Parts: sequence; structure tokens; C-alpha cells
Amino acid sequence: MALIVQKYGGTSVADVDRIKIVANKVKNEIEKGNQVVVILSAMSGVTNSLVKFCNDITTFYDNREYDAVVATGEQVTIGLLAIALQNMGIKARSYAGWQVPIITDNAFGKARIKEIKPDNLLKSLENGEVPIIAGFQGIEIESGRVATLGRGGSDTSAVAVAAAINADCCDIFTDVEGVYTTDPRIVKVAKKLEKITFEEILEMASLGAKVLQTRSVELAMKYKVKLRVLSSFVDAPGTLICSEDEIVEKEVISGITYNKDEAKFTLVNIDDVPGVSANIFKVMSNAGINVDMIVQSVSSGTKTNMTFTVPDSEFEKAKKAIEANKDLLNYESFLFDRKVVKVSIVGIGMKSHSGVAETMFRALAEKNINIMAISTSEIKISVLIADEYTELALRVLHTAFGLDKEISEKE
Amino acid sequence: MALIVQKYGGTSVADVDRIKIVANKVKNEIEKGNQVVVILSAMSGVTNSLVKFCNDITTFYDNREYDAVVATGEQVTIGLLAIALQNMGIKARSYAGWQVPIITDNAFGKARIKEIKPDNLLKSLENGEVPIIAGFQGIEIESGRVATLGRGGSDTSAVAVAAAINADCCDIFTDVEGVYTTDPRIVKVAKKLEKITFEEILEMASLGAKVLQTRSVELAMKYKVKLRVLSSFVDAPGTLICSEDEIVEKEVISGITYNKDEAKFTLVNIDDVPGVSANIFKVMSNAGINVDMIVQSVSSGTKTNMTFTVPDSEFEKAKKAIEANKDLLNYESFLFDRKVVKVSIVGIGMKSHSGVAETMFRALAEKNINIMAISTSEIKISVLIADEYTELALRVLHTAFGLDKEISEKE
Repeated sequence: MALIVQKYGGTSVADVDRIKIVANKVKNEIEKGNQVVVILSAMSGVTNSLVKFCNDITTFYDNREYDAVVATGEQVTIGLLAIALQNMGIKARSYAGWQVPIITDNAFGKARIKEIKPDNLLKSLENGEVPIIAGFQGIEIESGRVATLGRGGSDTSAVAVAAAINADCCDIFTDVEGVYTTDPRIVKVAKKLEKITFEEILEMASLGAKVLQTRSVELAMKYKVKLRVLSSFVDAPGTLICSEDEIVEKEVISGITYNKDEAKFTLVNIDDVPGVSANIFKVMSNAGINVDMIVQSVSSGTKTNMTFTVPDSEFEKAKKAIEANKDLLNYESFLFDRKVVKVSIVGIGMKSHSGVAETMFRALAEKNINIMAISTSEIKISVLIADEYTELALRVLHTAFGLDKEISEKE
Repeated sequence: MALIVQKYGGTSVADVDRIKIVANKVKNEIEKGNQVVVILSAMSGVTNSLVKFCNDITTFYDNREYDAVVATGEQVTIGLLAIALQNMGIKARSYAGWQVPIITDNAFGKARIKEIKPDNLLKSLENGEVPIIAGFQGIEIESGRVATLGRGGSDTSAVAVAAAINADCCDIFTDVEGVYTTDPRIVKVAKKLEKITFEEILEMASLGAKVLQTRSVELAMKYKVKLRVLSSFVDAPGTLICSEDEIVEKEVISGITYNKDEAKFTLVNIDDVPGVSANIFKVMSNAGINVDMIVQSVSSGTKTNMTFTVPDSEFEKAKKAIEANKDLLNYESFLFDRKVVKVSIVGIGMKSHSGVAETMFRALAEKNINIMAISTSEIKISVLIADEYTELALRVLHTAFGLDKEISEKE
């Protein structure tokens, strides 16, 4: 008998019919003799509508009230799944975040889970009930108010619950079959990965692949929760996310990701002295903006050019900060380019393989794709290129690193 | 400075624009130096959608889960109104039922309020905040679960809060301008009443006029809450609901109501012995059905016919109960008629005026409207008639009791 945490995303509970399918999946596990705890998202689209209501009044809202509003979507689906399970003869009980309770800090709108009291859930399990928990939310004890965990927070709820009740595994059901070598909508020959390490999925998530909320992976890594991503639409094994030592045959590259939320600035003719790049970081960080890549051109005497990237969603704020700090940065002019994309290759095997960067750069060069900036970590290499090359770059890199799946005649 | 409880119904918070209008109305009271506590319904239509979700899974749902689902609509509007008020510079804070807390019994789906702890609300008011409370819901303490008060329960929430914090008045904002002598959609010359007694509004509500939830009026009467019904769309004084001694000039008849949720059964050739009508009540009450009117035909020897009415919404259940108890009731056959309506005149002045019934029956007779059954109380007379005469009966009675408003040339 295993204790399984299952999390179902918005598309998996999009309507009453989908909720009945989820109930069937839960029932299957129960009939195998397992205990199940379910975490749910809101019906797909509902949270967006709730967010829009708030924004239609003002974008300067009190996050505590925003949380009160947007946390309601999950409270609908948990009740409905409980009804659907009971209707199949399975005992079930819904729990809003405050009923568990899932205790958060007071960073309303993007709160972090401080503690989950497992007693109510364990009592439910003892009574033979399936506890069904609203994802994405908790309670801030001092104020007694509902706090949400930020978009995608239900993944984090699921992992945190799995850790709190010491579950055997945490299955994240979604509308894709698992984690792919790259976006299968762009690269038809993208393969589903059987396994991937926590470190790799963290890099992929932060680089733009929308598989799991980053914090959920960090939590799973910290508490050694066995995490799987799989489809609620297709009966297939999905992708296991595990620690490095559980993967015997390591691929050099596990995945290729891209992120279009990038904007590039170039400060022209700034002083070529130590401390200029520090100034750029300072100006941006004062404006609450993270600088990602940064490149200094070869100097022409005492002046140089400095290129750096920020999230395109922060473009206007970044532009204002640059304009407001002309004296400090001491540039002659500045340029920007919002039609750029960051393409990254990620792989734990990179640590023990040389020549990975060379393979990447040569593959892009052969297609005349110009690299504007580069950044690297131990397990990834990112390049900034013109966004019109996104699809071409993904395909050529996918082939270059031997990731293409074999297409059988049937397909 | 007055302490005012305002309740806004679903059409008054139907969308973000309407919620901003509500915020303005609250602001007006604050600027007059008053303290305001707001109770809200869900956006119109939302609760119905949530109920439908439950029913789409099964009609035999667990009421606790039903309550978890249907209580969410109010949690959206309270957060949005708080945001709208804050955006106007007014301090505000939303309260779900469990956050107040509003403590209910465990009759989930139609719970009754046991107690409202006023401390949090009073603290909010002391801090200069407008507390905004989700109507229709509370918490059952032992289970820690959300309980709803039954449809229309937000009126009850409002009156109970007004009683708990000893408010100066409780204003129920809705989409009509007050309580009318009869349905103004049918009788164009219906008048808005300036005042009406608790007793009369209770009769009218139970007779089918959908103005206020009956329990809210009972509570207001018990705790002497000054209750007003008024429009959130039109700036007009509305109708004051008060005790009899506050009304100086009593009209004989205050209102005329109708209820189409009526079905008539006739048991043919039953024994004309004492106890037969008791048997009918027993059979129906065992099936959970309230018998309303009951009439015995003039006996022809040892046999008689018995006619009675039940809510038409319970028709199928009632029919089954009659069929299942043929032996006990000992009828030869039974007839039914679902095309009937109960028309009632209500007035506290009836107590001191004679001839009211005569006026009513003669007015109907003059239009050849046949009366199938009659029931009376101290302050109302109800008749059962064929439902095709509903509008005609209302108009003729409205005129007969001198309730028609004078139409000015402008109108």
C-alpha cells in the first residue's frame, strides 16, 4: 500500500466531465489498495477571470483582497471532486487551504508555505477518506487571511503536502504527457524524457519551460519527494524527476528551452573603466529588475559598448531607469531590441563532457544564426539570438545533440 | 453618527461596474460621518452556475461539499468591493463567513445562524475600516466547515450582523425600489409602500412575494432591527419594515401576492369519518411535504371528497405518496390539477375591519373567477383559483381595495 499525492491542473478539472475522469483515476488507485491525497487547481480560465476582475478595478490592489478573490477557483473544484468521488462510493472530503491548515508567510499574492499541519489530513486518511485540498492557497495565521502562492502555486502545494505527510510519491497530472526534450509543438521529433534530474528541471523552468513551478521542484529536491509529471488525458508513464544518482545513463543534453520574454539594451560609448557593469546592475536592481546576460564589446580606446538583457515584461521600467540614470551610467546613447529570444541547452551530462559549447555554436553558425550574447552555468548554455530564428535554432540543436526520436512508419 | 448595515444583492454586484457603484454608495455614507458594514451576495447568476455544477454530477450530493462549492461566489464580490473602496481612499476589509466568524448549526445547505462573534467587526470599525462580509454563509465550528444558509440567505446574514453589532439600521439594496402593493410587472398601478409591518411582510414572503428571505424578517422582528428595502439602481427612499405601532394610518390591505408553486389534489370518495384529513397530513408529512390548503366537500352519505394543495415543486413526490398509501387513505380515485395559483390579500388592518373577505369574493365573482379553496389567518385571506386568471385577479383585487396609484399626466 502506497500513499500517493496527486495534483491535477486546470485543464484536468476544466469541467464536470473532466472532474468525473479525475474521480475515476483516483478510484483506480484506491482500488489498488493505495491511499490518495488530491490537490486541485481551479477550472482552466477561472483564475484568469478572477485576476481580470481585480485588474478591471485597479492594478494597485491590496494583495490580501486579491488573494481573497483569486483563491476561490480551487474551492469550487475540490467540492465538486468530493461530490464526484462520493457518488462513486468513495469517501472524500474537501479542504480549503485554511482548513488543512496550510500556513504561509504574509507575502500575500506570492506567499511561501511555512508549515503544513498534517493532523487533519492524516485523520481523514485513517477514516478511509480521500482528502481533496485546494492548491495555490494557504492561510496567514496572524491576520487569519487567505494567502495565495503565486501562479502555478498548486504544484508547490502538492509537493509540500507530500513532504508533510511523508507520501511515497507526488504525481503532477497535466495536459502534456511529461517533460520533453524540447517544445513538441515546434519540434515534432521531440522526445518525452523518462527521467530528468531536479537540477535540470530547475534550469529548464527558470529558462522558460512551463512544466512545474520552480519552487515545487526546489521543495521536492529538499524533502526528497519522488515527483512525476504525467498526463490526465493519456494513460502513459510520464517523466520521473529524481536526483542525479538515480539516473544511470546520463545524456549529455536533456533538454532545449527557449524564452521570448527577453529584451536587449546596448549602452553606447560608455567609459571603459572597472565598475561600469556594477553600475548597470545597481541601476536595474534599484528598479527591481533582474539583469540576465551581460556582454562588453571589445574596447576602442577609453570607450566601450555594454549589452545586457532584462525580461521583456520589464522593458518599460528598464528603459525609464536607464534614461533616469544617464549621468551615472555616462553613455552617449542607448539602443534596444525586443525581438530577441534566449535559447538554452540543459544537461547534467555537460559536467563530464567537453565540446558541448562548440557543438552548439557550430550548429547555429551553419544556419547563419548570429549569437548576440552567451551565458553559462555548470549544466546549461544559453545564447541570445534574433527571435525569428527560434524554431530553426531549436530544430537544428535538437538534431545536433542526437535528441530526435525515431519516427516509426506508423507515425 | 449612525452605524449602518448595507446588504447588496446579486444584481447590485453583477459586474465590476456595478461594484464600483456600490463602492460609491458606501463612500457617500462614510462621508456623511456614518459607519458602514456591508454584506454582499454573489454576482447574479454565479450561485446558480455553482449549483448546476453540483447537480450535473449528482442530485444526491453531500451538503457539506455543496456548501463548499456554492459559498465561493460571495468570496469573490467581497474582495472586489474591498479593492474598489480602497481605490477610492476608503479603508476596507473583506470577511468570509468563517473569518467573522458567523457560527451556524450543522444543517448544511440550509443552516441557521447560531451566533455572530462581533469582536473582529467592531475592531475593524474602530480602525476606520468598512468590514465587507460574505452573505449566505457561516462556519460550523465542530467540523470547521463552511455552511450556507439557503437561497436568499444573505438577507438573513445582514439582519443577524445588524443585530450582533447593534446597528442603527439594516438597508437591503436590491433591484426593485421597495415593497409594492403587488407585482408591478403585472399591475402597472401598483404602489410602492412607504412602510409595512413585519407581520405583513412575513405573510407576503411566505405567500410567494420574493422580497426578503422569511428568516431575515423573523430575525429583524425578534431583535428589533430597523429594516429597509431599497434600490441600488435608483436613489429613492424605499420601504421601511417596522412594528405595527410605528404605522399610524393603517391600510386595510397592504399587499396582494400570488404563488404559482401550487398543485391541487382531490381524493374521490373517501370515508366521511373523523381522522381522514389527519391521515392526509400524516402521509404528506412522512414524505416531507407541507400541505397548505385543505377543503372537504359536502358529504353525500358516508363518502366525501377531500381537496388539498401542496407545492407544485413537490408534485411528483406527493403523487407517489398518495399512490403508495391507497389503503390507508381509502380513496376510490384521485384527481390533480397543477394549473392553479394561490392569490392572497395581506393587511394588518384586516384585524379591525369587517367585510374584507366579502369584498374579495365579490370582486372575483364579478369576473366569474371560481374559488376552489380558501384559507385565512388573522391578517390574510388566500384563495386558490385557475392560474389563467392570475393577472385579472390581481388587477381586480388591487382596484377593489383602493390600492391603485393615481397616474399623473407625466406618466
